[in-house]
Amino acid sequence: MTRLCRTFQTAPAAVPREDSAKYLESGLEAEGFEAPDWLVPDIEDGTAPDMKAEAVENVVDRLPGLAPDFGGEVWPRVEWAHDDAEFRDRGRDQIDRLVGEVGDHLDGVVVPKVGRLSDVQDAVGAVAEAERDHGYDDGSLELTVIVETAAAVSDLPDIARLGEDDRLAGLVFGPVDYTADLGGRAMDGERPRWSGLLERLSNEASAGGLVAIGGPFDRLFDERAGVTYYNAPGYADQVEREARIGLDGSWSLHPKQTSQANRVHMPTASELESALDKVEGFNEAKREGTGAVVLDGQMVDEATYKNFANTVETVRRIDDAHPTQTAESYDDSLLERARSVTLRFG
Amino acid sequence: MTRLCRTFQTAPAAVPREDSAKYLESGLEAEGFEAPDWLVPDIEDGTAPDMKAEAVENVVDRLPGLAPDFGGEVWPRVEWAHDDAEFRDRGRDQIDRLVGEVGDHLDGVVVPKVGRLSDVQDAVGAVAEAERDHGYDDGSLELTVIVETAAAVSDLPDIARLGEDDRLAGLVFGPVDYTADLGGRAMDGERPRWSGLLERLSNEASAGGLVAIGGPFDRLFDERAGVTYYNAPGYADQVEREARIGLDGSWSLHPKQTSQANRVHMPTASELESALDKVEGFNEAKREGTGAVVLDGQMVDEATYKNFANTVETVRRIDDAHPTQTAESYDDSLLERARSVTLRFG
Amino acid sequence: MTRLCRTFQTAPAAVPREDSAKYLESGLEAEGFEAPDWLVPDIEDGTAPDMKAEAVENVVDRLPGLAPDFGGEVWPRVEWAHDDAEFRDRGRDQIDRLVGEVGDHLDGVVVPKVGRLSDVQDAVGAVAEAERDHGYDDGSLELTVIVETAAAVSDLPDIARLGEDDRLAGLVFGPVDYTADLGGRAMDGERPRWSGLLERLSNEASAGGLVAIGGPFDRLFDERAGVTYYNAPGYADQVEREARIGLDGSWSLHPKQTSQANRVHMPTASELESALDKVEGFNEAKREGTGAVVLDGQMVDEATYKNFANTVETVRRIDDAHPTQTAESYDDSLLERARSVTLRFG
Repeated sequence: MTRLCRTFQTAPAAVPREDSAKYLESGLEAEGFEAPDWLVPDIEDGTAPDMKAEAVENVVDRLPGLAPDFGGEVWPRVEWAHDDAEFRDRGRDQIDRLVGEVGDHLDGVVVPKVGRLSDVQDAVGAVAEAERDHGYDDGSLELTVIVETAAAVSDLPDIARLGEDDRLAGLVFGPVDYTADLGGRAMDGERPRWSGLLERLSNEASAGGLVAIGGPFDRLFDERAGVTYYNAPGYADQVEREARIGLDGSWSLHPKQTSQANRVHMPTASELESALDKVEGFNEAKREGTGAVVLDGQMVDEATYKNFANTVETVRRIDDAHPTQTAESYDDSLLERARSVTLRFG
Repeated sequence: MTRLCRTFQTAPAAVPREDSAKYLESGLEAEGFEAPDWLVPDIEDGTAPDMKAEAVENVVDRLPGLAPDFGGEVWPRVEWAHDDAEFRDRGRDQIDRLVGEVGDHLDGVVVPKVGRLSDVQDAVGAVAEAERDHGYDDGSLELTVIVETAAAVSDLPDIARLGEDDRLAGLVFGPVDYTADLGGRAMDGERPRWSGLLERLSNEASAGGLVAIGGPFDRLFDERAGVTYYNAPGYADQVEREARIGLDGSWSLHPKQTSQANRVHMPTASELESALDKVEGFNEAKREGTGAVVLDGQMVDEATYKNFANTVETVRRIDDAHPTQTAESYDDSLLERARSVTLRFG
Repeated sequence: MTRLCRTFQTAPAAVPREDSAKYLESGLEAEGFEAPDWLVPDIEDGTAPDMKAEAVENVVDRLPGLAPDFGGEVWPRVEWAHDDAEFRDRGRDQIDRLVGEVGDHLDGVVVPKVGRLSDVQDAVGAVAEAERDHGYDDGSLELTVIVETAAAVSDLPDIARLGEDDRLAGLVFGPVDYTADLGGRAMDGERPRWSGLLERLSNEASAGGLVAIGGPFDRLFDERAGVTYYNAPGYADQVEREARIGLDGSWSLHPKQTSQANRVHMPTASELESALDKVEGFNEAKREGTGAVVLDGQMVDEATYKNFANTVETVRRIDDAHPTQTAESYDDSLLERARSVTLRFG
């Protein structure tokens, strides 16, 4: 199983307000289900061109105070573009500055708009160089890339294989830039879902041992009969589609989205109970020497067992990281079963 | 056209009953539409861990008596796992034993849970070694692999190219393990359909000259208003989706499924009649010197002709192998037209 | 952005009528929205085997008179087959003859039924040789291939990379031959849509800088309650699906289809107006130092901006090539905004 990243929440690192670090701070201080697994201070497209420098300063200034009490991981998104050297130069400078000043509080760096394999290798090199220059151990800082160009998708199998023995940790889909790069058109206001590509993203991430994350959902608010409301169903539908095909987490633009995605990527109580029934039933069948058993009309064998064991294992890992979330989701006896059952893998 | 494999029926080679070979025997003795094109004695996930040895014994014991009168092909599934050397060792031993004892009655071996290209090459090597050790001609025993890991899907184009000049004969999808390997979740009890992957599986199998087979459908029975029934519509829907995209056959877990899949992967009488009309009409147009003709409002040219000729050719091949099935499906005059019309390919 | 090819209209180069060049002529003389961006005189499957020679003669005879006044590009489709040397020999002869006689009037050659990378390289070589033999500058004649075999799809990423530094200009999908090559079946008369493949075609074309075109729609006419009608909705649905995922244009078999596809692949007046609002609004936000702005409830940042700018750029290019089409589609003030707004890319 890959690391926990149910939520990849971007927060503009500087906005034109009195407290320009407002969203960065609120992301790092969020509690309960609004706390993301990964917080991504955004120095790239979410920050205005003339505020990039202030965005870097905000990250450098706020992380030492807020990161130690933040339960998740911290992954700033810097500037980059496979087809523009100026952006790559700015990205290298930002990576160098961040690692040098607050490297202790970073898990890695998110690099957008990467292109073919060689461009991703350049991004790997930029992180390795900053790490070396500032005295960090080799591999202590990781890289996650946004997959949002035709070039990156064309080379996806090779890019993902960098995860096998390198610092690459995650693949995140960027549908807006991707659609623009392919010349796609939002007929009736809807972008394509790119479901074939998302299947491949999930596959290659699993093959390379990487986290796979879906793209942002930007229709945060909708309107019906004159009333504007938070678009909870639209986002939940997207997150469910992502969970179904094995994406590990979803992109969040807002604490409410984080709260939803954390829940969807977490087994429900009834899913957990059903998985425990299957795991316990199969464990018993194995003790009695049977390799397959029919439970609730469904055959459980070595192959199907893995699914149920994965469900239980995920709950354990969320419980380790965010005990308030598991306490709210499962009653004590169910959680105790999840913690104590024997999980046999492989 | 690839070889006939409308049905890939797995039968547990040993079950905890008085006659532990019950399903193996009934698979080999099935008649009419319940007779599969390929019978797969399952020594892997369908057989309990403590019955693996008995499963091998059952295959060795029963094949000499039952295989000669079985009309289809026989392909045992052995143990294997790309990420577990112990399983691969057991698989090599099982292949060696089966080829040594009943190699005359085998068409090939099915190897599950393969990984990247190098792992599939290892499986090829295991079959080649057993063949050589027991005095069979090179290439007389073939290999079919279950595609059910992210690693195998990542390397699918290269794996399928082994079919061009090697003993690889088929690609079979394994959705349960695959979904688990990607961390996919069965939201609302439904697994993803992996339709993008199935398109690619069909493509790569065709490019490499391999048979392509869909995954098992395990909701064999369903319930409505308190009554449990054989889930005929659910399975038929899946088999039809598979036929549409060019999968050559479907996985069967039960004689009723075999009976359905044999029928769906067989042209209907009206499809055959329509194909014959188009083939005969186009043949006549060609004699009159026209390269395209409009028949029933549809243009038939060199390109569309191939579809119709393939339909007729499939009927001929089923008629060669299972004359009772064609006799039940088509009236004599239609079958006679199918046997006598001139099919021009390439 | 890639070159303009909203419509790829094939016209049989010889038909068994008194004027055998009738469709070739009408394609080159079409006006307004019925004028295709690319006209493809079809010497391959649309022309009867015994009329191939006459088809070549018709192209050689008619182009000098009609091509100079035709606004679009001219791309004859010759014979070819990756698995049949006889077809490739005929294709080489046809390319040689066409380039030698009317090379001045050709933009390139369309080669069907290509296979793996090496076969596409052979087709590239055939065009290069004809170009050299007849004294044309290197690269003055381009190649577009029809992707309609499992072999070509298996090698698609490598084939598309030929576009990076070679004469390959376009990828066109051929669903009828493709479905036949995979052994797909038209259940209920419907072929599969191959949506996973079309996503990949769009991606690889964009990665290689190529034009991507969808397949032909051959149910030109439909019937309801005894009345036969031109199937306008069926074709429009397909073209819209293609536009959404970033295919640059659609295959047309008829002037009415050309007229529809030219319109669908052209922004509507309200799409143009909305894009202009977003572009102008974001330009203003940038001047005020903000990198993102909410317009009509949607966040516009550097990433989303590209989509809107592409819409405006497309309108400009159609206006350059076909001013009667833009005059009919947009009022003067809207067109003036599109021509004068500042578009910032990269």
